[in-house]
Amino acid sequence: MSGVTLGREGPRFDVVAFDADDTLWHSEDGFHAAENAFCDLLSTFVADGVDLRSTLTATERKNLPTYGYGVKAFGLSMLEAALSVSQGRVTSDVMDKLLGIVRELLSAPVRLLPGVAEVIVDLACDHRVAVITKGDLVHQSRKVTTCGIDHLFDHVEIVLEKDPETYSRVLREFDVEPHRFCMVGNSVKSDILPVLEIGGHAVHVPYHVLWELEKADHPVGHGRFGEVESIAEVPDWVRQGGE
Amino acid sequence: MSGVTLGREGPRFDVVAFDADDTLWHSEDGFHAAENAFCDLLSTFVADGVDLRSTLTATERKNLPTYGYGVKAFGLSMLEAALSVSQGRVTSDVMDKLLGIVRELLSAPVRLLPGVAEVIVDLACDHRVAVITKGDLVHQSRKVTTCGIDHLFDHVEIVLEKDPETYSRVLREFDVEPHRFCMVGNSVKSDILPVLEIGGHAVHVPYHVLWELEKADHPVGHGRFGEVESIAEVPDWVRQGGE
Repeated sequence: MSGVTLGREGPRFDVVAFDADDTLWHSEDGFHAAENAFCDLLSTFVADGVDLRSTLTATERKNLPTYGYGVKAFGLSMLEAALSVSQGRVTSDVMDKLLGIVRELLSAPVRLLPGVAEVIVDLACDHRVAVITKGDLVHQSRKVTTCGIDHLFDHVEIVLEKDPETYSRVLREFDVEPHRFCMVGNSVKSDILPVLEIGGHAVHVPYHVLWELEKADHPVGHGRFGEVESIAEVPDWVRQGGE
Repeated sequence: MSGVTLGREGPRFDVVAFDADDTLWHSEDGFHAAENAFCDLLSTFVADGVDLRSTLTATERKNLPTYGYGVKAFGLSMLEAALSVSQGRVTSDVMDKLLGIVRELLSAPVRLLPGVAEVIVDLACDHRVAVITKGDLVHQSRKVTTCGIDHLFDHVEIVLEKDPETYSRVLREFDVEPHRFCMVGNSVKSDILPVLEIGGHAVHVPYHVLWELEKADHPVGHGRFGEVESIAEVPDWVRQGGE
């Protein structure tokens, strides 16, 4: 438990919700390794100077409205980019390796980030604790159920998009007022800005890799926004009332 | 509105829920056409007598626990099966065509089945009407929001698996007792048996194609089970109290 004394009114928030990928457990580093493998495998099929990584990102961006988030969407985009950037010269052996990477990403064990278990155990003592994540339904569900701290979550929401409308709907489902809600996550675009917009509090915890399509400016100076260096600092921030 | 007279107590059910794919709109026929295209495209790469369709189904079955349901899962399995059954001899041109089929399936407009709009309009007058579907989050959401009758649904649930535990959770979310709940769908395995198991009512409406992995025996004679030929008969069945 945190050493901070609570006021007589009890906790400042009813629900503290956490993003999952790159907040509770490693994820983007796996995609990053897959991108590196893609670049290595395709390099012999393209002219020097072709930017394989940006081709892959552009394909993901094009497909995002139709494919959505997650490993399967990434995998289909990676296969498409391989065929396209190599002008069809990619071998079936390389295609098979790319499919193998997708299967590995989908079946890799969950790797909790340092301090996560302690923080969730701590906050669950006097808050409802939730996970709000986007991505693939089957993959995210598997990660939640196998992460070892599943029993501490009062709510798990796997959503299509993290926009203000979605957070409003989820908060209604949780039966919590926005000013009694705090979101914790590594993406300013998905975890911070939409929550501030609907009147909630939000704490940014950085992860060392951020997906190109998640980049956004930090709302520095916003009264309901916090920044910490590590998830271990979150309980103090939460109990000090988001100041 | 149906001509059946209601008792003074009002409708027999509080919530009537519909499966989506092949109950509200066409879906399996698209997969079936994709399977046919797969068989045509791969036929020149395999020996006579190789059963391409069963190879594809076996690959889907193997990947189901990791990939889940939906078009993206199907697409990844189809690409894997193409590489595997051709022993790597499949051309990049064929791989590109298979990826194109996946994109087409994901972006094809919704085709409502005959009578669906009338039935939903009718039942929504005096019931809460829901959609409970499994599959891909982004694809199923897009189909629901573009189907033209989205505004008539009180609840939309996109679930990982249609088992008794999931139905129990969804019914708690709907705040409805099982005996006041009726599920309508084309899959005995997913829409009928688990609902009967938790004490709900269920009506089977056949679709002309059923996915190999959805096949199950009908619970003929079960007191809370109904079978109709067409969705147009559902309002009468529902209003006559599931008899």
